[in-house]
Amino acid sequence: MKKKSAPALKSTLNIAHYLKSQKEFIDSYLANFLPPLHTDPKSLHEAMHYSVFAGGKRIRPILILATGEALQIDRNNLIHLACAVELIHTYSLIHDDLPSMDNDDYRRGQLTTHKKFGEGMAVLTGNALLTHALKKLSEIPSTPKRPSLVHELCHAIGSQNGMLAGQAMDLETQGKQFSKEHLEQIHSAKTGALIQASIYCAGLIAGTSQKILDNLSSFGCKLGLAYQIVDDILDIEGSSSELGKTAGKDSVHEKATYPALYGLKASKQFAMDLVNQAIHQIHDLGPPSKTLIELAHFISVRRF
Amino acid sequence: MKKKSAPALKSTLNIAHYLKSQKEFIDSYLANFLPPLHTDPKSLHEAMHYSVFAGGKRIRPILILATGEALQIDRNNLIHLACAVELIHTYSLIHDDLPSMDNDDYRRGQLTTHKKFGEGMAVLTGNALLTHALKKLSEIPSTPKRPSLVHELCHAIGSQNGMLAGQAMDLETQGKQFSKEHLEQIHSAKTGALIQASIYCAGLIAGTSQKILDNLSSFGCKLGLAYQIVDDILDIEGSSSELGKTAGKDSVHEKATYPALYGLKASKQFAMDLVNQAIHQIHDLGPPSKTLIELAHFISVRRF
Repeated sequence: MKKKSAPALKSTLNIAHYLKSQKEFIDSYLANFLPPLHTDPKSLHEAMHYSVFAGGKRIRPILILATGEALQIDRNNLIHLACAVELIHTYSLIHDDLPSMDNDDYRRGQLTTHKKFGEGMAVLTGNALLTHALKKLSEIPSTPKRPSLVHELCHAIGSQNGMLAGQAMDLETQGKQFSKEHLEQIHSAKTGALIQASIYCAGLIAGTSQKILDNLSSFGCKLGLAYQIVDDILDIEGSSSELGKTAGKDSVHEKATYPALYGLKASKQFAMDLVNQAIHQIHDLGPPSKTLIELAHFISVRRF
Repeated sequence: MKKKSAPALKSTLNIAHYLKSQKEFIDSYLANFLPPLHTDPKSLHEAMHYSVFAGGKRIRPILILATGEALQIDRNNLIHLACAVELIHTYSLIHDDLPSMDNDDYRRGQLTTHKKFGEGMAVLTGNALLTHALKKLSEIPSTPKRPSLVHELCHAIGSQNGMLAGQAMDLETQGKQFSKEHLEQIHSAKTGALIQASIYCAGLIAGTSQKILDNLSSFGCKLGLAYQIVDDILDIEGSSSELGKTAGKDSVHEKATYPALYGLKASKQFAMDLVNQAIHQIHDLGPPSKTLIELAHFISVRRF
């Protein structure tokens, strides 16, 4: 049987405008979602605000809101989840940038947290963002129909196939040979799992059916992997000014990446194929999923 | 009105034997509570097991079980909470020992996690223990009568008067003048809040009344502060072999401690007074609280 191709998209959405307006909406909530800036301990709260407002694209929370649009629920129902996920993402970046990890001085064109506040404070800042995100998430009550969001997200960022597993495998493989299977496992864990869980949790809050939840999970899994592959492509192709961080760091660290194993051209094709496969998974959602589909396409061709 | 004095205790409990047997019970659960040792990523799971089984006294989980005894519920109902709290405590120690924080090579007589597994892996190991603890805690469902344990514990270890606040204030005050009020604030946050929340959460699981919960909270608050004061006394008085870590580190770091501000004798008296005040708070619990009271006394006179 011939596989149905992804819907041919004639974009009517101005993606740049959409991203900007959603980012503004998210940022307006993030400031109050965080602990107040000028409360003790001031250094820690200042570092938390600095790190969160250091120019992030807010791709993960935007994906959460677009999933809500696809499932036809108001974005106000998802903003709590969206903010928590952005804090978790920021925590992972702060720790990734530490001298003992990737040792990056700049991120999004600004000094990394440890360069600005010192290494010890950067460790605490990451921890505090994670802890605060989970505390706020635990305020969304679980129900018999909705398992705990804390559980879903902790699994996605944990040591068993989650983000921390990916980061640890990254450390383990530096400078070593790695197989294609191993590479996919690292990428899916390091970046894919949190994106997948973000989208899945949006479905949980929307109270959608198990079938749609499963489809959203597959969509998020493939999209998350594509996102990391494009990240690795940009690390080679992008200039430092475009990326806002030091380009080419992955090759210095001899990290396991798709371009390193397959070359640039094949990696780009692979990312696009993955996005098309992802979009197939949410075909049943129909017209309301238009924005989510455009976002997925954007992810495969983004330049930053 | 004359204040009722703390009940005069004629100890019938062999505290050393009690601590040993409770530790064995907790350790037998901890091994299965953690992710399996030989699963990928092996380095991370090995570091998690190493850190948790590097000779901890298990004081916090033992306090949880003793609180359960005082409230007359079976310890099996509390072992999940007890294990989660021990993982959270271990996470805090791993990060505290990092070169960018206290820079300790030994803890409990064994190499610290970063000396054994490298600094990057130690950051991830702490993160993974915290994440796993909260994931497992989220499996205990909240009820209208029992608010989320994740929420309580995240607050206790967070940036707003919790453990991370204490750690950040510790960094802020190194080498600086500090007031008595500031010192109590740091200690209560850094060590007191997790001990307080552990005891409070045991009360929540037991389904006890709000009045008793409040009393347990006051008990935990005072006991937690006393615990940290004794820790600082031991840092000066204890030998490195007794402590299993480098003695005298706090004075090298010019940390805010009770002995530094009040001297050893007054600090010891202060710790004992706090424990007596703590014990007053749980007077209403009657004979079943005997073990908990003995544990509190032990904390004020411990040598390790």
